[in-house]
Formats: sequence, C-alpha cells, structure tokens
Amino acid sequence: MSIQTAIAALRNLMGDQLSTNHAVLEQHGQNEAYFPVTPPDAVVYPHSTLQVSEVVKICAAHDCPIIAYGTGTALEGHQLATRGGVVFDLMHMNKVLAVHTEDLDCVVQPGVTRIALNTELRNTGLFFPIDPGADASLGGMAATRASGTAAVRYGTMRESVLALEVVLADGRIIRTGTRARKSSAGYDLTHLFVGSEGTLGIITELTLKLHGVPEAVSAATCRFADFESAVNTVIATIQSGIPIARIEFVDEMMARGFNLHAGATLPEMPHLFVEFNGSVSAVAEQAALFGEIAADFGAEGFEWADKVEDRARLWKMRHDAYYAQKAHRAGAQVKNTDVCVPISKLADAVALARREALELGLTVSMVGHAGDGNFHCGIIVNHDDAEEMARALEFSHRLNQLAIALGGTISGEHGIGIGKTGYMEAQHGDALDVMRIIKAGLDPQNIMNPGKLLPGN
Amino acid sequence: MSIQTAIAALRNLMGDQLSTNHAVLEQHGQNEAYFPVTPPDAVVYPHSTLQVSEVVKICAAHDCPIIAYGTGTALEGHQLATRGGVVFDLMHMNKVLAVHTEDLDCVVQPGVTRIALNTELRNTGLFFPIDPGADASLGGMAATRASGTAAVRYGTMRESVLALEVVLADGRIIRTGTRARKSSAGYDLTHLFVGSEGTLGIITELTLKLHGVPEAVSAATCRFADFESAVNTVIATIQSGIPIARIEFVDEMMARGFNLHAGATLPEMPHLFVEFNGSVSAVAEQAALFGEIAADFGAEGFEWADKVEDRARLWKMRHDAYYAQKAHRAGAQVKNTDVCVPISKLADAVALARREALELGLTVSMVGHAGDGNFHCGIIVNHDDAEEMARALEFSHRLNQLAIALGGTISGEHGIGIGKTGYMEAQHGDALDVMRIIKAGLDPQNIMNPGKLLPGN
Repeated sequence: MSIQTAIAALRNLMGDQLSTNHAVLEQHGQNEAYFPVTPPDAVVYPHSTLQVSEVVKICAAHDCPIIAYGTGTALEGHQLATRGGVVFDLMHMNKVLAVHTEDLDCVVQPGVTRIALNTELRNTGLFFPIDPGADASLGGMAATRASGTAAVRYGTMRESVLALEVVLADGRIIRTGTRARKSSAGYDLTHLFVGSEGTLGIITELTLKLHGVPEAVSAATCRFADFESAVNTVIATIQSGIPIARIEFVDEMMARGFNLHAGATLPEMPHLFVEFNGSVSAVAEQAALFGEIAADFGAEGFEWADKVEDRARLWKMRHDAYYAQKAHRAGAQVKNTDVCVPISKLADAVALARREALELGLTVSMVGHAGDGNFHCGIIVNHDDAEEMARALEFSHRLNQLAIALGGTISGEHGIGIGKTGYMEAQHGDALDVMRIIKAGLDPQNIMNPGKLLPGN
Repeated sequence: MSIQTAIAALRNLMGDQLSTNHAVLEQHGQNEAYFPVTPPDAVVYPHSTLQVSEVVKICAAHDCPIIAYGTGTALEGHQLATRGGVVFDLMHMNKVLAVHTEDLDCVVQPGVTRIALNTELRNTGLFFPIDPGADASLGGMAATRASGTAAVRYGTMRESVLALEVVLADGRIIRTGTRARKSSAGYDLTHLFVGSEGTLGIITELTLKLHGVPEAVSAATCRFADFESAVNTVIATIQSGIPIARIEFVDEMMARGFNLHAGATLPEMPHLFVEFNGSVSAVAEQAALFGEIAADFGAEGFEWADKVEDRARLWKMRHDAYYAQKAHRAGAQVKNTDVCVPISKLADAVALARREALELGLTVSMVGHAGDGNFHCGIIVNHDDAEEMARALEFSHRLNQLAIALGGTISGEHGIGIGKTGYMEAQHGDALDVMRIIKAGLDPQNIMNPGKLLPGN
C-alpha cells in the first residue's frame, strides 16, 4: 500500500504531529453537507511551511493523496479524503505574521480564521471584510474563493489576496504576487491558486488587503409584500451606484427560520438586510437614497441598527442562516445551492427557483448576497430519505442549468469540491481542457486533493 | 521555410486580408520604445473569431509564430515579431457587441479602443475608467494588464475583465468567466489570460465591467516645495481611506515637460493632479479632507478644474506625458521605467530614483500613479548613443532591483514584453517554473508570441 508506506515514513518525520487515531480520522472525515463521513488514512499537523514541504515530498514519493484542511466547513466536500491519503490539518499554522497598517495589508498563516484576524486588528483601525457564514480559516477561504455578505462593496477573496506562498505538488515552495497593489509582471499565479481548492498546491501564507474601519456604519432591515419587490429594490440599488456595503435578500421562509433559530420576531415576509459604510454624511446620504428606492417598491417596517451590538446581533443571525434553515424541521439536514447570475436576471432566477421548489414539493428557504446576483436555496432534507434527496438533487440540478442558461455560474462562493464536478463541462466547455492541462502540468501524479474540482479526475 | 509555407496557405484562405507589402510590414515592426524596427513576415486582418481560429490552425500546422497586434502602443516590445511570423492585426474586429446597462457591463471585440468605447457609452450614463496614456485597444490592454490614472479608485484591467473569449494555440475557441459578478467554479482562467501578453492565446472578445458616470466630478492641481511633501501627501491620502478617483505625482522636470509640450504654465515644482468622483456632497467632503492633508504638507497654488473642458485639458496633458517627456531635448527618445512598490515605500523609491539619475548624469522626468505606488521615470536618451543608452539601462536596472528589494514589482502596468524578461527570475524565483509549465502545456510548439514574457523562451 503506497499510502501506508507514506504514513510509515511520515511517522518518523512528524512523531506526534501525525495521528491515525480513529476518532481523529472520523472527525476529519465529517462535513456540513450531505456527503457520507469519509475519513483519511492519517492526519498531520504541520507547524511550518518547511514541514508542509517535507510532508508533501514524502507523500509525492509514495503517490499518496494530499488534502489541505482548515476548519472543515466547506460545503461541497472539498476536504473529504475520497481516495484516502493524508489530511494536512493547518490549524496550528495560525499566526498573524505582520500587519502593515501603512499599506493596508497583512500577512497571515493559513490557519488564522476570519474572526481571529479581525480580533487581532481590533486596535489598528483596519478590518478584513470577507465573511462567509462559518468562521473559516483564511487559507480555506482563499482555496475556495469564498465571499460573504460584504462582497458587493469589498469584493471576494479574489479581490482580497495580494500574494501567496504555496507548496507545490513536488514540495517546492513558491511565492506569487507581491505587496504592490498592482503588477504586470507575468502570469497571474495568485489568482490561479485562489479558488483552486487544494488541487494545485497548499497555501501556506497569505498577504491580504485590509480596509479602514468606516467612520460611520448603519444597518437596517425592511420588508416587502412580495419577493419581486425585494429583488427589484436590490437591482435598482446596484444600478443606482450607491456604494452599499451589504444588501441581503431574505425570503419569507428564511424569515421564519430566523424566528425559530435566533428568536427573531420578523414578519414572515420577504426582507432586505442592508448596511451602509462611510463618513457620517455619506452614510446618511446613501441610506436616504436607498430608502427612496425601497419605498418605490413598497418597503415597510424599517428597523435601524445603529448601535454596534444591534448590528452584531443582526449579522450574527444572518451568518447563522445555515442553522436557521435547519430549524424548519426537527433533525433535518440542509442541501444548499449557490448559483450566481447577472443582476438583471436575479428576479427571473429567484422566481424559477420558487416554482421548482413548489413543483418538487420541497421546503426551501432562500437567502442571498443579492447585490452580487448570488443566492442560496436551503433545501430541508433527510439525508437518509433517498426519495427526498433525489428531489433535492433534481432541484439543484435545474437551478444549476438555469444559472448557466442565464449567463451565470453554478457556484458564486461555495466552490465545486465533489458536489458539482458534474456541471463543470456544461459551465466551461472546452475551457475545461485548459484547466485539465494546468492540473496535469502542476500535479502530474494527481495527488493534490484528487477527485475535486475537475470531473473524472 | 515553415513560415513561408504558412503564408502561402494563408494567402489562399485570407486573400486581401493578408499583406506582405513592405510598408505594411515595416509599420507593424515599429514601436514607441527603444527597440529596433522588427517587421513580421506577413500581417493578417481577421474580421471574426472564426477567422482568427482558422489562421491560428494554419500557423500551428507550420510552426509559424503568431503575434496579436492592436494599436502597437505597447512599451516593452510586446508586438514585435522577433522570430518572424504572422502579425494578427485585430483592429478590424472593432465592434461593441452589447452594452448591458442594467448589469453595468459590456461585450466588445478586441480592436475597440478605450476612447471608442467611451464614445459609444456616451448616452448610457456609464463609462469605462481604465486609461493608459495611449488610446489603446481593449484587447491589448487586457493582454498587458494595463491600468492608468484611475486605477486607485476603479482598479486595473485585472479588476475590469469579467469574461473572455480566447483562441488557443491549437485554434480552439474557449470562453472564460461569465457575466456573473463572482464565481467559485474552477480555475480562474480569465485572470490567467489577462496579462499573458499573447503568449497563451489570442483574446477575441472581452466582457468588461462599467461604472456609473459620477454625479459630480472635481479635479485640481497643487504644488509642493519638495517631492517628499508631494509623495507623503499621497501616502497620507490613501491611508486616510478617501476614495480618491485619481492622484498623480508630477515632479519638477515633468512640470517643465508639460509646459514645453502642452503650453502649460506650471511652476517647475513637484505637483499632484487629483480628481474626486461621487455625489455632490461626497465630492465636496473628499476635496476638503484632501485639502487638509495636502495643507499639512505645505501644498500651495490649488487650481480647481470643475468644468468638463478644463478637466479634459488637464487629463489630456497628463495622458500625453510620454510626448511631454520627449520635449526636453529636440529629437530625443524616451526610455521609460514602470516599477510599483507598497505605498509605504514610495518616498524611498522616488528618492533613490532621483539619486541614481543624478549619479548617472541622466535627464529624468517622473510621473506616477502614486496612489498605486506606481511611478514612471522617463529617461531622455538618444537611441543611437550607445554610451547614453547604457547609462539609461543601468538606471532602469537599479530601479528594477530596488523595486524587488522593497517588496514591489518591476512592472506596474507596462508588462514584460522583450524588455524585462531578464528580471523575471529575480522577481518570481521558482514561481517562474510554474509559468513555464503553464506555457508549455498551453502552447507546446511555442508559437504564441514567442520570446515574450518568459526568459529564454
């Protein structure tokens, strides 16, 4: 067994930084989605880039699969050892290495989480805005090209990573990008590794853009008579050019989920959750403009959250949407979708999703980074109910096809993992061959997170 | 001769869309930099993506070099047929194919220039902000990852291209990206082709982000007693988070150049040229904040350009900096530099550049997209004076080494071409091998703009 010979060699190198303990393997085989528990053969806990490199070299010598692992919160099974092998748990590499306040950037190890980074930045006047629901590791967020509620203003991990250190499939350590804000010096390797889901290398260091904490912040919720009015308010707001910091769509089922899970008292109607960042006068001006647009679409019940603790409660509720979706049915699981379309197609896409859910007899709650054209349908399922799971997958299938037909994407922010490889051909056509060529060139043994991102890989 | 057999085959296919006329070849062998005239063996004028694909297939069958060509305004010899072959003059593919005002994007052919696009957008309330000095083609701008004066607010071509159509080295046509604003569906091929300088494929269609024309725009110039005060004003402005639209550094020699070339009457002192975009109140607020910062550094002589025609004159003068640099000496040419450093290192970098220019006895005028940490030194040279050219290249060499040492890049926006391949190893280390692997995978015959971007290629 090549994997077993690799593990024997690794045990010598890593000592108690390697585990084959049953409970540890089981824990690293878990996932928050609908995939079966899939434990690896071993877990290593590297403390440095050099250790990552040494472990990769041993794995490569034995053709042993390598799976980078952060908080394990990926939603498409990215972190599962579907072909066995060694999980690299990077959570011990959790140092903020430098904060350059004067350049609005920082350098971190991959195991730093987004909340840990913002805690570290507390007294600098700077913050890191990318906020997926989970308190994910920044390495994992880069690997899946994550985003969140503030992408409409601050971009996604695509726009936030200035430079990377990466360990390649042969163990070599490279650096991509620089701390300069722009560069025309060669191929853009930083963007190649961001979103590559551990299939081209392991990210061992990240240089991230930071932003100044705005002078003023104001958040609000408001409700609409129907989803079309809410979505059309989003479209008109984006088209108006208001630099809104957050604009989240919540449907009536999601509102009910928040009431059940977070003890909220939202009317069970479609809502928008919005936030404005800027100077005191800019925030007031943006809020007034948004209020006018929303009023045109019949918005009612504006609730303003001007205090820090009120906003924290509001966005905590939003970030916990995944758990709120589960609250609809005791013991239920959730299958999530993640399509993203041009903003002009958002109302069409949401309407179709609602129709399909009804037709398939599914309980679906919707929440969306609507300003990006990205929305999630949380389908309530029992994973053990094959008939219900089949309907959930059919719903997801129709939605993915629709997104492609509307000129959009099957994944706005969750990634491909093992859950969506079947749509890569339809999404990319012959461009998929270019991805395969890159993968074959950089990982000729196919040991870097095999079976993920590319179909038939 | 494989090139000659390719041309014979192409003549059949393309008829009078192919030229081997001496004057045409000479014209396509010109450049605005210091490289000798380097004519190709033939020029083709495709009218469609399909024609590009067919011509590429014939070239590939005969191992004939392929050079994509737009306005010929690249500054590092990107467009020169250094190994002969066929230039693809794409300026007949100059249609704006779609403007999606509701999604703030457009779809264009590669031969549309930035000014032509903005003319087309005149009545839409939208504009395209990326503005290198030349009225370059958008295909060329994407291929070199160009930027300009507004990158500090609106980003570069890296942030502006949503999707591409590309003809690969084997003639296959692929599409990268979608019109959705974000995606986590596989490797980021769009960013791989942006900045690849025609070495991986030919860009035949671009989907570009647009921006709403701001309600209010205000521009100003002001002057400083010394360059440190000007540069430190830039640094403090960026750190303050003012969303300034343009902030350009102009040294005393550049001010003199503008006086000579554009009939300006600037005091021969360091200046900043700035612009604010936004709502009426936001522009007023930003301008006041900037004014306070600049005053702290002794700024004087604020001249405001609030009228459209005054601003047009101001930015036309700035865009013509290359020609103004030439005005210092009759019949002179200019060798330009393009380093970009973290903003905190900008004052150091400018100071060192000034010292080196003095030591090497060179006439240098500086102009910079200072908000990005990017500045250009225009060195006045006589290309035929070998000794002077040697000093100019030594200056450029020292500046490139300095940029790398300061954590920056040898090219902020001009690209590598044939002029800077010698610095790619120092800039990228082992990451250069990753670039070579990608190049070898996508262009195994090395026919796509050979000799450019990668050293020893």
